[in-house]
Amino acid sequence: MEKTDAVVIGAGPVGLFQVFQLGLQGLACHVIDALPQAGGQCAELYGDKPIYDIPGIKVCTGHELTDRLLDQITPFAPHWHLGQQASMLEPQLGGGFLVQTNRGTQLHARAVFIAAGVGAFLPRTLKLPGLEPFEGTQLRYRLDDGESLAGQSLVVHGGGEDAVVTAIRCAGAPEHLRPARTILQHRRDVFDAPPAVLEQLRALRAAGLIQVAIGVPSDIEQAQGRLSALLLTTPEGALLRLPMELLLVRLGLVPRLGPIADWGMALERKQLVVDPATFATSAPGVYAVGDTVAYPGKRKLIVSGFHEATLAAFGAAEWLAGQKIPLEYTTSSARLQRLLGV
Amino acid sequence: MEKTDAVVIGAGPVGLFQVFQLGLQGLACHVIDALPQAGGQCAELYGDKPIYDIPGIKVCTGHELTDRLLDQITPFAPHWHLGQQASMLEPQLGGGFLVQTNRGTQLHARAVFIAAGVGAFLPRTLKLPGLEPFEGTQLRYRLDDGESLAGQSLVVHGGGEDAVVTAIRCAGAPEHLRPARTILQHRRDVFDAPPAVLEQLRALRAAGLIQVAIGVPSDIEQAQGRLSALLLTTPEGALLRLPMELLLVRLGLVPRLGPIADWGMALERKQLVVDPATFATSAPGVYAVGDTVAYPGKRKLIVSGFHEATLAAFGAAEWLAGQKIPLEYTTSSARLQRLLGV
Repeated sequence: MEKTDAVVIGAGPVGLFQVFQLGLQGLACHVIDALPQAGGQCAELYGDKPIYDIPGIKVCTGHELTDRLLDQITPFAPHWHLGQQASMLEPQLGGGFLVQTNRGTQLHARAVFIAAGVGAFLPRTLKLPGLEPFEGTQLRYRLDDGESLAGQSLVVHGGGEDAVVTAIRCAGAPEHLRPARTILQHRRDVFDAPPAVLEQLRALRAAGLIQVAIGVPSDIEQAQGRLSALLLTTPEGALLRLPMELLLVRLGLVPRLGPIADWGMALERKQLVVDPATFATSAPGVYAVGDTVAYPGKRKLIVSGFHEATLAAFGAAEWLAGQKIPLEYTTSSARLQRLLGV
Repeated sequence: MEKTDAVVIGAGPVGLFQVFQLGLQGLACHVIDALPQAGGQCAELYGDKPIYDIPGIKVCTGHELTDRLLDQITPFAPHWHLGQQASMLEPQLGGGFLVQTNRGTQLHARAVFIAAGVGAFLPRTLKLPGLEPFEGTQLRYRLDDGESLAGQSLVVHGGGEDAVVTAIRCAGAPEHLRPARTILQHRRDVFDAPPAVLEQLRALRAAGLIQVAIGVPSDIEQAQGRLSALLLTTPEGALLRLPMELLLVRLGLVPRLGPIADWGMALERKQLVVDPATFATSAPGVYAVGDTVAYPGKRKLIVSGFHEATLAAFGAAEWLAGQKIPLEYTTSSARLQRLLGV
């Protein structure tokens, strides 16, 4: 189990700035996020859309803001645990906390910072009787980089850009990685994707590399403990049997607060209640910032999250040190400039 | 008297972002600042020094941050009242407030935002018996742009960079604007300025264009209602009589909260007490943000001022509208984008 000063749960803009402010307090961090990359909502929901209300930055996209913050925290080199969801938080008798993820990572932290936004962005699931046990084998929500699907019969389920792009990427992969058959499966023959993507789909359909199967999934078939077919109800009410070996569900991501809500900290309408002077939750040593918190006047804006992360870092540093931490300025403090490496 | 939605007192970074957030609420602003340009402390105290803790901006100087914020508020075109100190704030029976400056500007505002930082940056004064009545005529703390000193006998008082640069600028002006005599007056013949500036001073002294008079001012002489000489006590204890027509005092700027402290709002250790949910002061309709406020957990950091200005804008907008204002995002709200002109 790794020991660290702080674990930050959530790598959105507020979590990233939390790392920065903890760094200025001389506290080292590990960062956990359910997404495979940093940026959170900001990158996931408006990665390429303009944001106009970050102070001093007239306009930037979600991706650009993420990149700027990643650049800014470089001196504090946090340890990343991406593509993992924080699943357990337990205070330890000897002090500090055990934080565990759904992929078995175990960390011992002196303080914990929850910057989980509206929750972990997890794939929207497909629910069919008997399907769940196949998750991770024949039912997948995400492929690993460069994973081979050679020779497999693949069904990609979904009607949005994400599903269409996934089908195109699989069917258009180099021959030695390409599935034997790629079926794009959606309830109707209309896909919600940009024109250029739809044009690529049309070309691959014309070339026979992607087939489209229309209908609503109603059941699965199994044979010898393996998933053998997906059963669809067509718009005409007929039953369609789709033999397959791998079902890749791409219905987009939905945020879920998940286990955090069950850790025992005080909640108010599913938000963590914090003291706005220190951003301490009801559990001593656990701080919360950003869209996941409630306090009088709270507005879910990034600019507020930055302030919250700053006061949370001071709150935790004072709690850990057992004494007041005086304010220093990065413009004039040799100590802060040494930490920043400037 | 001009009517406006809001008057913002203080054009530092927090005052500028206050204009931005009020703009997003559809509220027009007038801005008052004692300095002749925007930027406040940020430009005055660390204009050319690096700041490292503005979220998303790895490093910028005080001047750069000011320029970025001025650029960001362009769509909201505030009215500027610079080089003026807010001297009076009075609630009006018909609603709203009368705000007045020391230069006679009168504004009627529906709400007032105090972003006065550590106070108005005013020139450090020279105090000598009988000197004060000459302020604005023969005693000056600042010259106007391009003002002619032709034929005058000038004494520049001060030992810092500001005084030295002022003496150099006056003595080195084109002949038709140049004083007849430029005397740099300080208590000792040692000046605190960068080497390049000291070298310019040396050259102008060698050329006879600047003379240096050493001693501590102890009195003045008057003749026919005019200031005729400055009397100095030299380091050797002798009395030195310096005939002169214009005394330019350049001792730097000092922040003074000034009249704001006497307006009747609740104070705590000279800070305005605010509700951190709305940043309302004890006077309904008057909000305060930035280094001038006190609330539990307050840290005097720009990042916190940005958050405070945001909540103050919501606080005031709800108070003026008499109803809740829902949160909108600049990324997705057509209304906000229209206000921003994008």
